[in-house]
Order: sequence, then structure tokens, then C-alpha cells
Amino acid sequence: MSTNTFTPGTRAQQGKPVQQPSPMPFHRYSAFQPVTVPDRTWPDQRITHAPRWLTTDLRDGNQALIDPMTPARKLKMFELLVGMGYKEIEIGFPSASQTDFDFVRKLIVEDRIPDDVQISVLTQAREDLISRTAESLQGAHRANIHLYNATAELFRRVVFNVDEAQCIVMATRGTELVMTYADKYLADTEFGYQYSPEIFTQTPTDYAIEVCNRVADVWQPSPEREIIFNLPATVEMSTPNTYADQIEYFIRHVRDRENVVVSLHPHNDRGTAVAATELALMAGADRVEGCLFGHGERTGNVDLVTLGLNLFSQGIDPQIDFSDIDEVRRTVEYCTGLPVHPRHPYAGDLVYTAFSGSHQDAIKKGLEALQRQADAEGVALHDLHWEAPYLPIDPHDVGRTYEAVIRVNSQSGKGGMAYIMKNDHKMDLPRRLQIEFSRVVQQRTDASGGEVGSELMWQIFEAEYFKDNTPLELLEYKLTAEGGVYTVDAVLTVNGVERQVGGEGNGPLSAFVDAIAAAGFPVRVLDYSEHALSAGGDALAAAYVEAEVGEGDDARVVWGVGRHSSIITASMRAVISAINRTDRPE
Amino acid sequence: MSTNTFTPGTRAQQGKPVQQPSPMPFHRYSAFQPVTVPDRTWPDQRITHAPRWLTTDLRDGNQALIDPMTPARKLKMFELLVGMGYKEIEIGFPSASQTDFDFVRKLIVEDRIPDDVQISVLTQAREDLISRTAESLQGAHRANIHLYNATAELFRRVVFNVDEAQCIVMATRGTELVMTYADKYLADTEFGYQYSPEIFTQTPTDYAIEVCNRVADVWQPSPEREIIFNLPATVEMSTPNTYADQIEYFIRHVRDRENVVVSLHPHNDRGTAVAATELALMAGADRVEGCLFGHGERTGNVDLVTLGLNLFSQGIDPQIDFSDIDEVRRTVEYCTGLPVHPRHPYAGDLVYTAFSGSHQDAIKKGLEALQRQADAEGVALHDLHWEAPYLPIDPHDVGRTYEAVIRVNSQSGKGGMAYIMKNDHKMDLPRRLQIEFSRVVQQRTDASGGEVGSELMWQIFEAEYFKDNTPLELLEYKLTAEGGVYTVDAVLTVNGVERQVGGEGNGPLSAFVDAIAAAGFPVRVLDYSEHALSAGGDALAAAYVEAEVGEGDDARVVWGVGRHSSIITASMRAVISAINRTDRPE
Repeated sequence: MSTNTFTPGTRAQQGKPVQQPSPMPFHRYSAFQPVTVPDRTWPDQRITHAPRWLTTDLRDGNQALIDPMTPARKLKMFELLVGMGYKEIEIGFPSASQTDFDFVRKLIVEDRIPDDVQISVLTQAREDLISRTAESLQGAHRANIHLYNATAELFRRVVFNVDEAQCIVMATRGTELVMTYADKYLADTEFGYQYSPEIFTQTPTDYAIEVCNRVADVWQPSPEREIIFNLPATVEMSTPNTYADQIEYFIRHVRDRENVVVSLHPHNDRGTAVAATELALMAGADRVEGCLFGHGERTGNVDLVTLGLNLFSQGIDPQIDFSDIDEVRRTVEYCTGLPVHPRHPYAGDLVYTAFSGSHQDAIKKGLEALQRQADAEGVALHDLHWEAPYLPIDPHDVGRTYEAVIRVNSQSGKGGMAYIMKNDHKMDLPRRLQIEFSRVVQQRTDASGGEVGSELMWQIFEAEYFKDNTPLELLEYKLTAEGGVYTVDAVLTVNGVERQVGGEGNGPLSAFVDAIAAAGFPVRVLDYSEHALSAGGDALAAAYVEAEVGEGDDARVVWGVGRHSSIITASMRAVISAINRTDRPE
Repeated sequence: MSTNTFTPGTRAQQGKPVQQPSPMPFHRYSAFQPVTVPDRTWPDQRITHAPRWLTTDLRDGNQALIDPMTPARKLKMFELLVGMGYKEIEIGFPSASQTDFDFVRKLIVEDRIPDDVQISVLTQAREDLISRTAESLQGAHRANIHLYNATAELFRRVVFNVDEAQCIVMATRGTELVMTYADKYLADTEFGYQYSPEIFTQTPTDYAIEVCNRVADVWQPSPEREIIFNLPATVEMSTPNTYADQIEYFIRHVRDRENVVVSLHPHNDRGTAVAATELALMAGADRVEGCLFGHGERTGNVDLVTLGLNLFSQGIDPQIDFSDIDEVRRTVEYCTGLPVHPRHPYAGDLVYTAFSGSHQDAIKKGLEALQRQADAEGVALHDLHWEAPYLPIDPHDVGRTYEAVIRVNSQSGKGGMAYIMKNDHKMDLPRRLQIEFSRVVQQRTDASGGEVGSELMWQIFEAEYFKDNTPLELLEYKLTAEGGVYTVDAVLTVNGVERQVGGEGNGPLSAFVDAIAAAGFPVRVLDYSEHALSAGGDALAAAYVEAEVGEGDDARVVWGVGRHSSIITASMRAVISAINRTDRPE
């Protein structure tokens, strides 16, 4: 031990800070009483493989949107989910909504469901609804009916007025009816069955097990005839360990465990749905239901993106493709009309950004150490085992890049960079462009070290995004649209040499991108936004494009900005701006 | 057991869905190896009281904003935190930034820190920085210096190139220097000390304990001289139980436990910071550091709002006032420039909203049962023990209201209500107004049951928000501003009778609210937004006001909308619109 060379005590003694009672009426609530499992084993377990995933983006997620998805958006979401590798997809509640019924029919009739994907639909336990549900699935190759009824005491008492025995009859009778109507409508379908004792978390666990056992008596599971018991944390009731206790207890006591698939369906009322899911997987659950980025009623379902990438970060294949996380995010934002938060794990705008100098320094040294190792081993950095300060995963693995944001010196003024750009210059920069532009400003001012006022900031912005006409400049273009196909004929200068190019696409921008690819400039548009400028001379619209310019290892992600009285011209200029910026230092 | 009356098996056997390997390079990662605590006790514990809270909104939160807070915003945040009841507030990193230094001085010199609030500032372990840090605190009544150095192996090796022994010397020498400079500058300050072994989660726990014990040798804690060991999950490394294991192990083995305050500082890289904090509190930790709504580097610090209200929902006083959660949220959004997500627990726009018919039905029956009980007992519903389907807490307790959103029938069309209002009618409705207007549309169309097209939707909107001039109509007003005080003299009709009223405030809207209060219409503006209308006749601006109209038990929260070529007139009209709507059925 070191010798203490100080005699403390010359300063005042510390009185400890004391918090005071709040005015909150906490006496209206009482602590949740979970099942007792003193010999639980889950805290010693590790998750070693991906669970089976079911996405309910098209059912639980969709039902909780202010603007539910249109059929076109539903289809886009379905195709995203299939493309990512999800094999179990709940696609609606067909007996509750004609829209949902029609969507199920559309997928089946148009043969849009791959053979290895099992669709699933939800129903309550009434005969007319079950019949309608089975009818919706006619012709499906593989399908699953998911029946639920409320088993929680509060719901039985207040909502349905049924006792425990009656509640069991609802579940078993519903199961019988599912089998009857599956026989009637789905003789050629590989048919599966799922039962949920609703608000499992609020149901005494022994009773939930009894209901499930009685449902299994009807279904009679076998090795070739699994039954899925889905155990919803419809409302998150307590700390996440209590859900794991409930799941471990269920697994120990449910009959015929080997033919039962134990499925989780957590909601996020207490902000711990991801944790509850992970602990419950440690407790032995087989399957997880959730939504991309956690949509769903109230606080949402558990987020399948975070769960999948949490596995990935521990060396476990999530069995889902997250290699272009921004594309996933854009599609979900488009379909749901709701944003992904800038701090959302793995996908938010800010999560691969370091703001503090000490973080930036540590990451820089960490990346340099990796690069030295890569050079020594003769491999690429992105093939090395990942180990870097403050970055749990390599952003490259999900198609993102690390950004070090160095402060605009004017931060102590009346507002920051984004504020000044919006307030003084009417440019409402997308958040990732704000981050990029912060770096630009810093590079321009490193030498002077002075404050960056509003005027200087605009000069830097203009010089960076508008002024450079090398290698490309757009001189003029002709746009035609016919039958949904857009054709662009454009006159460019390429390094000062005039050139005519043409392209086509399903919109003006994609046609333009096609045209400039023909000129030798491959570009992929990653993000796009635009707005009207309510002030500022002849410039009436601004367009912002995040683009991947180039191909393969040489590809770079940069932003471009365009302004023009025509929003179409502005967006083309933004693409040109991005291309002309790719030779800037990173 | 029931008799099984079915012979299953007429339909095809089910092949189980099989997920496929993904292209994700998971082999680049390996599983985190936590400390082994097979005899852990935390899974059997319950949280029974609030921990000590420290908010680092002004330090860790502020350093990770694209636009850091201006001094005015910092002050607003500080006053919010004090008002909510936080007694330990980390206010900056004064040795790293002149802005932070100046802010610390401002709070002290202007005597803005209540006697029972302990401010805290962060420093690295270098002498010049420690000296400067102590200097910044001169004159403070109570203050805490928070020293950290990186103890994680990766950081020692890659970033600092120090071995374990050198790293301990940095910590102990730094502690000595803190004591030296506290003696020099802070003789009259009630002075406290906090040490963080940085990236505690990535540091071998035995080594972290050794470093802390050596730091304690220097500080020599006693019953009147606590030492705070803050154990940061600077990067969240694994499932949240591993953090709890680390904390329980630390608590068992750290020396002089009774004089040590074990503090948590979790980040949210895996989306489980709230869970990790709760499990670590079960493991015996005393104190939590975090930010309101979870700001901070990357995915942010743990969210103190969710943690506090999770306690509240279990009958535990959080010792923090969350009774006006929207005010807290607005202030944080204003200060940080970042949004709170619509699904954020307890505070998001959508979390007290039910979209599905079955949820709405259950909540309705639950609230009716509570009302019957309240009537029988002769008390107010909001004084009863809370128990309602799908609503973990009574929204009323945090100043919110429950909303049942019934679908606009046109949902199957080209877009939803919000889309049509924005695209066709240029009205960009705030999200909670979208929810309210959904209900209005439904009430208007319940009888007909037909589709709601764009034109009909606008007619409903006009009728609901613009057309009613009872009880109030604004005829004209005169506005004067002098020395920051705004005065309004307005001519209204009150139920058809002309009346002149006057009021003043710190802005035109507050002056107008003051004036109409004088006319007998008390209003509190809860939320406000405005935008220019880029199209549509003579109407150039739209204003939206969420207002609490009335007082006490009769108060109602409603939205009002105004349009006018003057944004000030539009906002006054919006307030009038809200008042005139309060007699509508809820």
C-alpha cells in the first residue's frame, strides 16, 4: 500500500446531500409481486445463439401508428423484413379489419411470400373471427394462426367478467375452433398454431401454465407438431429480472416442454424491454416477437434491431442482415411516419459520433493501433477482431462511419451551428449533415482559431457545398416522364469538357443518377431531404443528398447541397455537389 | 383436465421456420467475459427507496450535443433540475473549457445555487487541470470535485501506455492534488470528493477495487467524510446482469464500505442502461448518475426520468417532481435541441394513447370500474389506488391525459390524416394535436361511417378549430412592448357581449393570456408551435396552442389553432380556439 502523505481534515466536513420527499402521489401505487424462484439459474447463463425471431411490425407495430401504413407501405415493410432474413412475420389482424384481410389476400394471391417464410395472423377467441381468420389464409404455403385471450385477473374481472374456469374454456374452445377452421380452409397449408395468455406478466404464473397446458391438451403437440406459447409482457410491470423469473418458472412447469416453443413478446413501458428479453432468453426462451426500432402500442414492442446487434457485438450471428442500417432505418421511418431517435442504439444519427476531445483522442489512437496491426498482418482493418475505445462495434459493419465532431468555436454565442444555419440562412440541415459540416468548419478555422460568426459560417458553407464545379457541372437538362418512367437528358461538363448523357429511372433523381453513372460517376443516394426557403433572393428550394460516391473500397459517403427555384434542379445540383466534394480530405 | 374431443392431424405437418446465416461479420467480435459471482444475491432483492441522484445534463449531456447549450440554456436547465428536486448536479468540466469555467463562476458569483444543492465538476488527473478546477469553485457553499482516469486495459495499453502500477499512481497522485488545491482554494466550502475508475465495465473488477482502495488510502474516508466511487459503464458491454454482478462484487470487496458511496454511471449502448441501473441498485449501489431523457455521448447516459417514474410506479417516492412531465420535456428539448421520442417511456407523445379497439375497450371498462369505486367511497378517482388495463400509471399524475385514437376511416387511402393535412392543406399538426384531431374526425363520421376524403377532412377541421366564436371572439387588439414588458389591450366579445380587457407579460402571448384571464378565462399554455403556410390564399401563418383551460378539477387540456397573416394574431386566435373548444364532449 502507498503511504498516505496527507493529513486530511483542514477543510470543512461534508454534509451529505439529502433529497427531499416529492409531491408525487406514489402511495397510489404498490410494488409488483412476481413469482418466487429462489433457485433460478438464468443469472449464470449466456446467450449463445440467435432466438427464432417474429416481427410484428405489420400487426402490433402498424396498429399503433397515428397514420397506419397504406397497402403500398405495408408491402414495402414486408419486403424489407423478408430481405433482412426474418422467417416469421405477423402480417395483420384480418378478422378485425378489412384492410388487414385484403393485405393478407394480396400477399397470398400475388404469391409474394417466399417458401421459407411463415406468415402469421392474430385473432381473438370468437368463432366468427376465427373462421374469418382461417379464410384469409387460404392458399398460403405456410401459415400460423395466433390466438389470444386475456388471462390476467384485472382483465378477467373488469373487462370480461369471467372466472378462471371460464377463461380456460375460452382458450381451449378457441383452439378447437382454430383446428376446425384450419381443417376447413387450410388443408394444403403447412399450418402452425400459437397461443398467448394475454398480459402474461399480470397473470399468476401457475394459472398461465395451467391455461397453456389445457390448450396443449387440445392441440396435442408432438415433435412434428410444435405449439408456440407466446408469453406477453403486454405491459411491463417491474424490473426485467422478474420477467426472466416468470419465464424460467414457466419453462420448468409447462408440460411437454420439448414440443413447446416458448416465445417472448415484451413491451417497453419501463424502458427495459431489451433487457427483459435478454434475461428471459438466458432463462431458456426460444423465440422473440418484436418490431424494428420498437414500434407498437404506447412505448412500443421490444426493438429487434437492438436485440440483433447486441448478439452481433458478442460474436453471435443474429441471422438477420443489418449491414445497411441506414437503409433499414429509412424504410421504417417512411413506412411508419415516425422517426428513429438520434441516440437510438446502433442506428441513431449520433451513436457513432464522438464529441469530446478525450473520446476523439482515444478513438484515434485505437484506430491507429488497429491499422498498425492490420498492416503487420497484411489484412484489411475491417477484417480484424474489433477492439476500439467507445465504439462497441465497427460502424463499417452496419454501413456507417465514425465521425469526430469538433466544436464550432462560436458555441458560446447565441446558438450553435445548426441554429445559425437555420435562423440566419434558412438552411435546415439534416442531422448527419450538421455533423459533417461541423468538421468542415473546424478544418477551415483550425489555423485562425477565432470565433465563427454567422457571415463567416455562410462563406464556409458556400465554398464547401456550392462553389466547386470540378469534376462535374450541370449546364442544362431535359426531363420527360411517361408511364411512370422518367428520362433525363443532361448536358454536363466533366473536368471542363462538355458532355451529353442520358438516363432513366422511376423518378427524376434516379434518372439523373443513372445518367451521371453513364458519365463514369457511380452514385448511390442514401438519404434525401428538401425544403422551401422562406427567404433569400431567388433561391426558393434547398435539397440535401447523402450519397455513396464511387464503388467498392473507394466508395465514400458524403453530403451534397443544392439550391434552385426548381426543387428538381436543386436535387440534381445536390448530387453534383456530393460528387465534387469526394476529393476533400476525410 | 378437459377431454380432448379432437383428433388432430388431418392437415399437413408443420415444418419449423429455419433462419439462415446472415452476411454479418460476427466473427470479428467475442463475448464479454464478466466477473464470476455464482453466489450473487441481487436477483432476490427489491428496490425499496430512491437512490441519491446526480444529474450530469450540464456536463456529460451537454458535451454530446451538436449545438452545445448557450449560457442562457444552461441556466434554464440548471433551474429546471433544481426545481425538480435534484440535490447533486454536475455542472461542467471547467478545466477543459472556458465556457464551462465561466458558467461555474456565474452560478457561484450570482449566488444561484441553493444551500442544499451540491454542485460537482469533472477533471482529469493532471495538476494544472486540478488546480484550475478547484479555482473555478471558489466561494461555493457546497461542491464536489470528480476526478477520473482510465483503468481499462485497452485504454491503458492503446491510449495512455501506462501499466497497472502507473495507473494507480495517476489516481492516488490526482487525489492528493485535489486535496492540496481544495485546501488552497476551498477552505470555506463543504467539500466532497468523487473518483471514477473510467470504463469500469471494461476494467477487471479486482483491479478496479484495488485502485479505489488506494484512492481511499489517500482520502481517508470516515463517517463524516464520505468518498464517492463512481463506477461507469462508459460503454455498455454485455447484458445488464453482468453490470449488477460487477457492482455486487465491488461492494463485497471494497474496503471501508460504510464510508463509501457506490455510484452508477451507465450508458445505453445496448439499450439496457435503465435495466443495468435497476439491477445494480438491487446489488446494493447507493447513487445514480444520468441525464433527463438520456442525453450524453453516443446512445446517451441512463435516463433519470424513466428511472424515477419506474420507482414511482412501484409505490416508491422518486424524491423528484415529475408532476408536469411535458414542461420537463419541453425545457429539455429547448435546451438540447434534440427531441424526446414519441414512444419514450412516461413522456413520449404516444405513450398514454390507445390505438386498438380492444385496448380502448379494456381501458374504458377499467376507468369505469375505478369511477364506480371512487363514487362508492366518496373520493376522487385520482386519489384511488391505481389499477387500469394498459396504463402502468395514471397519466394525470404526470400532467398528461389518456387518449383513445379511433381510426380515420380513410386510412386505407393514399396516406393518413396527418399526411393529408400537411400535403393538401399545408397544416403541419403537432403530434398530440394529430391524436386529438383523429378523435374529432371519428366523432364526426361515426354516424355516416364513410371514408373521409381530403375535402371533408378540411371541413371538419375548420368547423372544429376555426368556426366557433362562443364564448370568445377576438375583435381587435393593440400591442405595445417596452423594456421587455408586453402590454395587450384587446376587444373581445364574451358570449356576444363586447368587452375590453388588458394584460401584460414577457411576450405577446403571455400578455394576451393575462388579458383573457381578466375576462374570466384562466388559461395555461402547455405547448406552442407555428409555421408559415407556403400556399393557401391570404392565410400566411398557422399557430397551434395546447392549453389547459380552467382551473382545478374543471381544467381541461385542449388544442387550439389559429391562422392569420400576422403570426401574433394567429397565436392569439389559437388560444381563443382552445377556449371555445372546451365545451366539446371529451
